[in-house]
Amino acid sequence: MTWTSEPAVVALGGGHGLAASLAALRRLTPDLTAVVTVADNGGSSGRLREEFGVLPPGDLRMALAALCGDDRWGQTWARVLQHRFESDGEMDGHSVGNLLIVALWQLLGDHVVGLDWVGSLLGARGRVLPMAVTPLDIMARVRGVSPDAPDEVSTVQGQVAVATTPGEVLEVSLEPADPKACPEATRAIGEADWVVLGPGSWYSSVIPHLLVPDLRAALATTPGNVVVTLNLEAQPGETEGYTPDDHLAVLHRTAPDLRIHTVLADPASVPDAASLETMTRELGARLVLADVALDGVPGQHDPEKLARAYARVTRAN
Amino acid sequence: MTWTSEPAVVALGGGHGLAASLAALRRLTPDLTAVVTVADNGGSSGRLREEFGVLPPGDLRMALAALCGDDRWGQTWARVLQHRFESDGEMDGHSVGNLLIVALWQLLGDHVVGLDWVGSLLGARGRVLPMAVTPLDIMARVRGVSPDAPDEVSTVQGQVAVATTPGEVLEVSLEPADPKACPEATRAIGEADWVVLGPGSWYSSVIPHLLVPDLRAALATTPGNVVVTLNLEAQPGETEGYTPDDHLAVLHRTAPDLRIHTVLADPASVPDAASLETMTRELGARLVLADVALDGVPGQHDPEKLARAYARVTRAN
Repeated sequence: MTWTSEPAVVALGGGHGLAASLAALRRLTPDLTAVVTVADNGGSSGRLREEFGVLPPGDLRMALAALCGDDRWGQTWARVLQHRFESDGEMDGHSVGNLLIVALWQLLGDHVVGLDWVGSLLGARGRVLPMAVTPLDIMARVRGVSPDAPDEVSTVQGQVAVATTPGEVLEVSLEPADPKACPEATRAIGEADWVVLGPGSWYSSVIPHLLVPDLRAALATTPGNVVVTLNLEAQPGETEGYTPDDHLAVLHRTAPDLRIHTVLADPASVPDAASLETMTRELGARLVLADVALDGVPGQHDPEKLARAYARVTRAN
Repeated sequence: MTWTSEPAVVALGGGHGLAASLAALRRLTPDLTAVVTVADNGGSSGRLREEFGVLPPGDLRMALAALCGDDRWGQTWARVLQHRFESDGEMDGHSVGNLLIVALWQLLGDHVVGLDWVGSLLGARGRVLPMAVTPLDIMARVRGVSPDAPDEVSTVQGQVAVATTPGEVLEVSLEPADPKACPEATRAIGEADWVVLGPGSWYSSVIPHLLVPDLRAALATTPGNVVVTLNLEAQPGETEGYTPDDHLAVLHRTAPDLRIHTVLADPASVPDAASLETMTRELGARLVLADVALDGVPGQHDPEKLARAYARVTRAN
């Protein structure tokens, strides 16, 4: 299989990392499905989740915007959906797309149908699905939350706290622990040619997918090749001090039954290529090193470079 | 000219009255322009106006929804735009369409362009324009606001207060007194075959257009035939105790230079047809009586009946 045959690709993640991944993959195939974390509890999403008991819509909105049509119609509606109100009042910080998604869910009574309507509005290439059909919370066991007690292990709850609390994350779990996956998401993974995990906030956007039992099972048995795209830098509060090997180790520890086909990393972000190479090989995968960084913006992937790297990854298959 | 030649029609008003008028007129011509009051200061519109200093979007949204496409796409987006959040929180009462319109204004920096984008989204038949490009307030001189002083005349400010304060409205004015009209609205009136005023809250949705100097001038010189559609009943707080003749008299007093072609009224709402007939003739107009009431909903016009009446009004021309 090659990209030119329009392979079915599923990209898992959340936030800006997933948006970069989708912006790259949309250049390569129209058969693209995003499976998005629903554990955000901050900002506009957190407020809407609190007020209406709905899935946090923000990561879903961002993924949809990344798939918008190339024409003026798609680009304009994507800008509208990404627009955030600024004021001294109650609307401050709310994103228009978040409000629209919640309204569609309330009106149509179905997450997937509602998101498909937003996709149609945008002329989106591909489809965006939530990873689970109930809002989730991320719980983390963190060592050294307080600088006075560097060895003490505490439990931290909620994506915002997990992403911002100082200390070393030892383990994350979901609350509830066994959420029901979105059936369309497990089906897409079951029919994928390629599955892309990462980049993104490791503990709050990448690992959570592996903690949803149905998704984990689907990922373990997918006929598709699993590509893990590593982050360009460690993230303060989540993965401070982590090497690329550490990121990979966390993933493997969380889902030892996941068969990884390719690990994609930027050579400038890999201090010890030999070590990562060895570890990758031990996991039965191959390492592909490629410049995928956005010039001048540390930590962010360049969708064009990423697209070229994915083309190489899959052509080399 | 007949309706079948697709005449250019401009409908002026606001709120539910204008929505009924548009729902009728859209059946008769695709060349339809709504010119909408921008003096609302209550509800979701009032909150957005207060928070962002924008035109109150609610009446514009309602007019757009009334023009939505007949297909599932147009109908669904109209439902989304009309959707109102319900909660115990900050979003309670906000309408999705209001938020979308404000976002488009903020992003695109132009009232008319923003409304045209919403029109495109809905597959709208016709166009919706604000009557002025700055938010307005309605001021009213009201006699007998307090039951203790039935002859005392006070000044009441704001559409909500004007529509709900007890007493008899003697006169309304706008604040600011000489707002700039939307240029596209005056142009549409200048090119109209027919201009329809009413139905609607007389002092807060119909009369205000005649208080905007540019609109008033355009209405006085329009080549189109002006149709005044009278309300089905008097409105407590605004026109309590008014006969159809009184409604017409207020209109004439406000704009003596307006040449009325047809007065359309429902016979069941006209207690003294001979008197209304005489007054209409004195104004140089003709009276058309037709059943246009929605069965079972007192005070509301039936768009289908209204469409038949407009067809008769214009065929008879």
